[in-house]
Amino acid sequence: MEKGTKIYEGKAKIVYATVDPELVIQYFKDDATAFDGLKKGRITGKGVANNQISCRLFEVLEKNGIATHFVRPVSANEMLVRKVEIILVELVVRNVAAGSLCKRYGIPEGQVFKEPIVECYYKNDAFHDPLMNDDHVVRFGLATADELVQIKAAALKINAILQSFFDPLGVTLVDFKLEFGRYRATLILADEISPDTCRFWEKGSNRKMDKDRFRFDLGDVEGVYSEMLKRISPVQS
Amino acid sequence: MEKGTKIYEGKAKIVYATVDPELVIQYFKDDATAFDGLKKGRITGKGVANNQISCRLFEVLEKNGIATHFVRPVSANEMLVRKVEIILVELVVRNVAAGSLCKRYGIPEGQVFKEPIVECYYKNDAFHDPLMNDDHVVRFGLATADELVQIKAAALKINAILQSFFDPLGVTLVDFKLEFGRYRATLILADEISPDTCRFWEKGSNRKMDKDRFRFDLGDVEGVYSEMLKRISPVQS
Repeated sequence: MEKGTKIYEGKAKIVYATVDPELVIQYFKDDATAFDGLKKGRITGKGVANNQISCRLFEVLEKNGIATHFVRPVSANEMLVRKVEIILVELVVRNVAAGSLCKRYGIPEGQVFKEPIVECYYKNDAFHDPLMNDDHVVRFGLATADELVQIKAAALKINAILQSFFDPLGVTLVDFKLEFGRYRATLILADEISPDTCRFWEKGSNRKMDKDRFRFDLGDVEGVYSEMLKRISPVQS
Repeated sequence: MEKGTKIYEGKAKIVYATVDPELVIQYFKDDATAFDGLKKGRITGKGVANNQISCRLFEVLEKNGIATHFVRPVSANEMLVRKVEIILVELVVRNVAAGSLCKRYGIPEGQVFKEPIVECYYKNDAFHDPLMNDDHVVRFGLATADELVQIKAAALKINAILQSFFDPLGVTLVDFKLEFGRYRATLILADEISPDTCRFWEKGSNRKMDKDRFRFDLGDVEGVYSEMLKRISPVQS
């Protein structure tokens, strides 16, 4: 499928039209940003790794009954996806305390929650993606109460599937961000699932294998993206 | 009932022990603070107004079936209350957009919500009382899931009672903050309900009759505290 006109460019991805009005191509950039866009850089190979990791994880989720926007990979750093009307709510699922949660509430990093925490953030750069509760989401008209119930339930199901997937690979799924979109009469998972949008810690060592290495200048940034790609790729026989 | 030792001093109130270990005296100060303690001042007569307004509103709520910590007034600026173990979650109920909600999400001031918004904030000065969702409240152990359901339901019931009370007085209840406490085997409403903890707008003019006059230097600060006291006091015949 050939790329048509650029219809959206974000911090880490570009979306192109295709000849099919229901399908678009997601191109994954090597550009990296952090801290609300204040820190900028490039991570060589990130686009390829994130595209291929996302392709694999979308396949795993589809096999487990989660509807996603994923259709198929089209190149090393591009995937064909269904065009959705994105819901302006970012869902974050947290199994272990890290990042903004620790800073906001003084919870020690690494604290394991008995049950996951699901958070909603307003997807709005101008307001710096603020935390919202369910009432905000519904009263501001970002999603209906029914849609919110559906995407929160899907987020928890996705968490369970991904935890089972990563556990035998020696990786703790600390937290991750999801975006959902409206497609025809349904809601489907959109965006990406990658070391840019998840926190992955190596079991045992708690070595960070995600964008925190870029955020906090921990070194070996490129290395962990390609290592995560290797870990999640099916073993070739 | 005589005041014993000071057991707590906050920004706007002092709590004293009494001879009865289950009862304490709440003393209302004229001291005023705003913006997370950055702005400090004094509002002459505020202690008296807030004590008497709170006494009256607790009475109204008790008559309508809400259990509160209120026992009786003991002086112009003091009330006798049940001693509770305070829940470290501040509940905010919003009927009309104002204050931090407008700033956080870009909602225009004065927007009326079809249904009220209930928010939970972590009562923690060191972390600047951050917004929480229900998962945070429960996973952090601040309240059980059952307690949270109870206090959110109580907050909505209190909102309905207070809206009915203020409506004929020509006052719109824009938003307000509540604190609850554990007392024996139950949860009861604690703290205060006053122009320090509510936003009151005069119907028609939308004139602010609450602490926003102090926050934003709108003038006539003392005047609106005594006017609110006058409006809520039963007419003497």
